[in-house]
Amino acid sequence: MFIGQGFDAHRFADLDSDRPLWLAGLLWDGVGIEGDSDGDVAAHALIDALLSASHLGDIGTLFGVGADSAGAGRHGTDMLAQTVHYLREHGYKPVSASVAIIGNRPKIGPHRGEAEVALSTAVGCQVSLTATTTDHMGFTGRGEGIAAIATALVEQVDR
Amino acid sequence: MFIGQGFDAHRFADLDSDRPLWLAGLLWDGVGIEGDSDGDVAAHALIDALLSASHLGDIGTLFGVGADSAGAGRHGTDMLAQTVHYLREHGYKPVSASVAIIGNRPKIGPHRGEAEVALSTAVGCQVSLTATTTDHMGFTGRGEGIAAIATALVEQVDR
Amino acid sequence: MFIGQGFDAHRFADLDSDRPLWLAGLLWDGVGIEGDSDGDVAAHALIDALLSASHLGDIGTLFGVGADSAGAGRHGTDMLAQTVHYLREHGYKPVSASVAIIGNRPKIGPHRGEAEVALSTAVGCQVSLTATTTDHMGFTGRGEGIAAIATALVEQVDR
Repeated sequence: MFIGQGFDAHRFADLDSDRPLWLAGLLWDGVGIEGDSDGDVAAHALIDALLSASHLGDIGTLFGVGADSAGAGRHGTDMLAQTVHYLREHGYKPVSASVAIIGNRPKIGPHRGEAEVALSTAVGCQVSLTATTTDHMGFTGRGEGIAAIATALVEQVDR
Repeated sequence: MFIGQGFDAHRFADLDSDRPLWLAGLLWDGVGIEGDSDGDVAAHALIDALLSASHLGDIGTLFGVGADSAGAGRHGTDMLAQTVHYLREHGYKPVSASVAIIGNRPKIGPHRGEAEVALSTAVGCQVSLTATTTDHMGFTGRGEGIAAIATALVEQVDR
Repeated sequence: MFIGQGFDAHRFADLDSDRPLWLAGLLWDGVGIEGDSDGDVAAHALIDALLSASHLGDIGTLFGVGADSAGAGRHGTDMLAQTVHYLREHGYKPVSASVAIIGNRPKIGPHRGEAEVALSTAVGCQVSLTATTTDHMGFTGRGEGIAAIATALVEQVDR
């Protein structure tokens, strides 16, 4: 059994920036998000946690960085599924994963079940989601953006 | 074996606000803390980690949010014990948990053992506590409040 | 199996401060770091995660705090190796560990493999490293310093 830690943060964008907010595999109303891919911090933190647990680098290793990266314009859940395929090719399989979202919005609770289904389907194991705020402190508390901390367990399997 | 991640942060309150600082199950001198319950970020981050590992939502799911929530006015360790009871009802049992407290104060070290006993008793397994500062950077470094990052392992048991 | 969480953050120092940047067991060019020891936030967060998983306190318990501490002037990997020796004396052995570095610089990717070897050698198990930025938000985004979040699994062994 191997353990991985992941973190990601993205800045909110204006709604008229044509960068809608994707988070935890879902599209959310009322605000946009910066990022070369779809800006899904929950998916990206999970990708880092899964790759780290498997000793296979991080999201930059697998997808590159910037507007020309292999992640550019792609959805987090699509990148998550590719990550899990990559793990399998290297003899690793996700066992359990969890991500904590930190931010003032969107309100995760009413859509948690739907988001957990989207993430768990992409990863192929139970993925859980929590959400919290920071009492108006720090960049998440000032509403500048969202952060996510993820952790994952993987095990070795026959290739 | 399932893994969970939790996070929480609360803002310090004036001592004369009648909101004393509860943290990691103990009452601390010299500063107060905001929050609808007792503001115990260590207990709350652990609750999120335990619920997430068990795929049972987060602290808002179980206790609600705000001044009318089921957590209002309650101690973190009491909420932790209720969380573990809820896990048991759903076939999960805590195996191990750990929480990292981030803040300038209080000084955790001299009371770590006592705090670990309070948290471990509430959770029913070994719960460990670390504490660190952020070199005067960010909201914890400026002394605006305290944050806590928690992780937990749970296993399934017969109901 | 026991789990631990660790966190650390240090402020960048001027290059002419005679405090070079040590991070994840390596020496990096272009910027310095504050700290009583070598300021290696990745190593320090791992030390806290390993000690917490083993219910043995945190880095302050083992090495003390401040300019007169047992960690003063020492390298993070050296402190990591001593931590693992201390775990062994108390019947614990690292199984797997992972650390997420948060900061604008240095660029970890080109040296990840080398850093993972340095950390894994010190810990005696697979240690993985991810790196991310915070979109110019918060103290890491403003380039004030670096943070690291670590997690670790340990198991009990015969002493």
